Amino acid sequence: MVTTVDIKAVVRTGRSTYNFGAGPAMLPESVVLELQQELPNHHGSGISILEMNHRSADFQRIINQAEQDLRELMLIPDDYAVLFLHGGATLQFAMAPLNLLGSRSSANYANTGYWSARAMREAERFCTAQVAVDAYESGYTEIPPEEQWHVDKAGAYLHYTVNETIGGVEFHWLPDTKGMPLVADMTSMILSRPVDVTRHALIYAATQKNLGIAGLTLVIVRRDMLQEVPASTPTMLDYHEHIRARSIFNTPPVFAWYVAAKMLGWIKAQGGVAAMAARNQRKADILYELLDSSGLYRNHVERNCRSWMNVPFQLVDQRLEQSFLQKATDTGFAGLSGHRSVGGFRASLYNAMPEAGVCALADFMREFERACA
Amino acid sequence: MVTTVDIKAVVRTGRSTYNFGAGPAMLPESVVLELQQELPNHHGSGISILEMNHRSADFQRIINQAEQDLRELMLIPDDYAVLFLHGGATLQFAMAPLNLLGSRSSANYANTGYWSARAMREAERFCTAQVAVDAYESGYTEIPPEEQWHVDKAGAYLHYTVNETIGGVEFHWLPDTKGMPLVADMTSMILSRPVDVTRHALIYAATQKNLGIAGLTLVIVRRDMLQEVPASTPTMLDYHEHIRARSIFNTPPVFAWYVAAKMLGWIKAQGGVAAMAARNQRKADILYELLDSSGLYRNHVERNCRSWMNVPFQLVDQRLEQSFLQKATDTGFAGLSGHRSVGGFRASLYNAMPEAGVCALADFMREFERACA
Repeated sequence: MVTTVDIKAVVRTGRSTYNFGAGPAMLPESVVLELQQELPNHHGSGISILEMNHRSADFQRIINQAEQDLRELMLIPDDYAVLFLHGGATLQFAMAPLNLLGSRSSANYANTGYWSARAMREAERFCTAQVAVDAYESGYTEIPPEEQWHVDKAGAYLHYTVNETIGGVEFHWLPDTKGMPLVADMTSMILSRPVDVTRHALIYAATQKNLGIAGLTLVIVRRDMLQEVPASTPTMLDYHEHIRARSIFNTPPVFAWYVAAKMLGWIKAQGGVAAMAARNQRKADILYELLDSSGLYRNHVERNCRSWMNVPFQLVDQRLEQSFLQKATDTGFAGLSGHRSVGGFRASLYNAMPEAGVCALADFMREFERACA
Repeated sequence: MVTTVDIKAVVRTGRSTYNFGAGPAMLPESVVLELQQELPNHHGSGISILEMNHRSADFQRIINQAEQDLRELMLIPDDYAVLFLHGGATLQFAMAPLNLLGSRSSANYANTGYWSARAMREAERFCTAQVAVDAYESGYTEIPPEEQWHVDKAGAYLHYTVNETIGGVEFHWLPDTKGMPLVADMTSMILSRPVDVTRHALIYAATQKNLGIAGLTLVIVRRDMLQEVPASTPTMLDYHEHIRARSIFNTPPVFAWYVAAKMLGWIKAQGGVAAMAARNQRKADILYELLDSSGLYRNHVERNCRSWMNVPFQLVDQRLEQSFLQKATDTGFAGLSGHRSVGGFRASLYNAMPEAGVCALADFMREFERACA
């Protein structure tokens, strides 16, 4: 059964592209190459991680380490359960209300962008979703200050989307909920900077942006916040079941979990979330400074809530859009198209995007502007 | 950004193990090595498949080809939708009743093993699950003939689990439902042999056994069978939404889908499901002949419903179990432990298990028996 691979094909791994896509997103090159090396024969076991049994001792070690690393990186106290689940954040839009409403019939939602609105709309299947604050009228370019919010005390919780990937709007402050349980969708910014977990009842995040590949979702939930789910709730949507089963209620997405474990190790090796935050802020600053000093590019988001993760921008002269995209692609920048709902462009700067990639993009954009002048 | 990998580490890919695990299961070596070679730089794109956007033209080509291959391999008519979803078969235990019940309040379930029972129990959250036939009393070692079944005509459908991985019991005939819509969990035997799709209203199958890795679930549903889901159904559990979105209602498990696409190509290259069936039957015959002629090993399943995919067996002298497992592991056979609920042993012989692997296992078992005599 011993086989060797075609070495010539393997060696040609030059990854000549910076992937600015909003997710699935760029992975650190070292992680991709480690995954490649280990793929056919996981640590001498003779089998691939792709074939590994989810109840094996080897996998148990991997997921134990992943949970430990996550708890350490995010300072997650013991009264919070950590789950790794199927389904993406979209399934959490339903699981959050199903598991937190209990006998209450409403919840509060801060509507600061496309994903907040999606979460809110899904919640309406299970309760009345009260709009605590609505940035829709501004075109999702601002987060109104908390004095203007209206949080209904009868609601079971207050939900907010920490970072909006399409609008490029991010909370750089934590809502003061005055005792109202706080629920956060952290899909697009988890582990990009420190967050006070203890101020939250529930945090969820799909992993395909800062924490690996698509197909896995992280849930961090304070155990005493969990309510009984309605009797007609599918078992797979009941956090209690997943807590009891330690996230192996059914066959989990083994490989996505493994990649997340590797990413957690990588973030630790980079110096943890504080180091990631410093780097992510520098990366974002490079682009926002360029946009603000340019006559060609424009970003419409209020400065106090600009995203470190997703920087949307438009060209003042829309006729240049196609040429910009073509030249960017030819230069080795992928994934710069804006979301199909808004057009324009977007540079996503998740943890794995190196500063060198952002500098290279900024250089290219300056050069393009000069050439167009 | 150009980097080369550590060649020494990559070359040492000798896969010295036959993995008889029940799932996640063995993959064909050629598929694993292809995945490895392509991993850092997908077909010259400069990015990894792990980083590929699910709405990119490249990914669209991959999933279109996957659907086309699946339709060709299983002869799926156009009036059936094909979906690739998150969540595993366990989520389908809920989605089937939610989407097929309509105004009916009951459904029929053939209880022929652990997974049938799980599906039935989940359905009870949404309706009355009528037991059409119950093999529990026999210890799940037989499938009673259809004359003994009681199918309630008021039920919305009849659900059966084509192959039971724990009991090692498989339907080698198709229930004649006399017009009652037929729902099949094919997780552990999909594409292992020809199946008449047109006799089914709904087929579902998680992919981690015959069709790749964990984290993806295949659904084949006749469009006119779909009913309106209850208003409180999470959107992610509504087949209509996934059909509308062509399985990209949210970010899908991109890599698992890609592996499934590769597996479909591999099955085609092997000659399709008829060729797989011939090979799978030969593989199963090798083991059952050994078990039936042995004084040491035993399989309790009725001959007419023995599984081609999962062959459970016990040692007559249980004191030899540990030594058997140790020697098997040392020889390079992984995953032979029986399910934790029943103990003993189990050899899973999914599509990717080569005949040489089964012959090697049979040789080992004969040798072990001789040595113990």
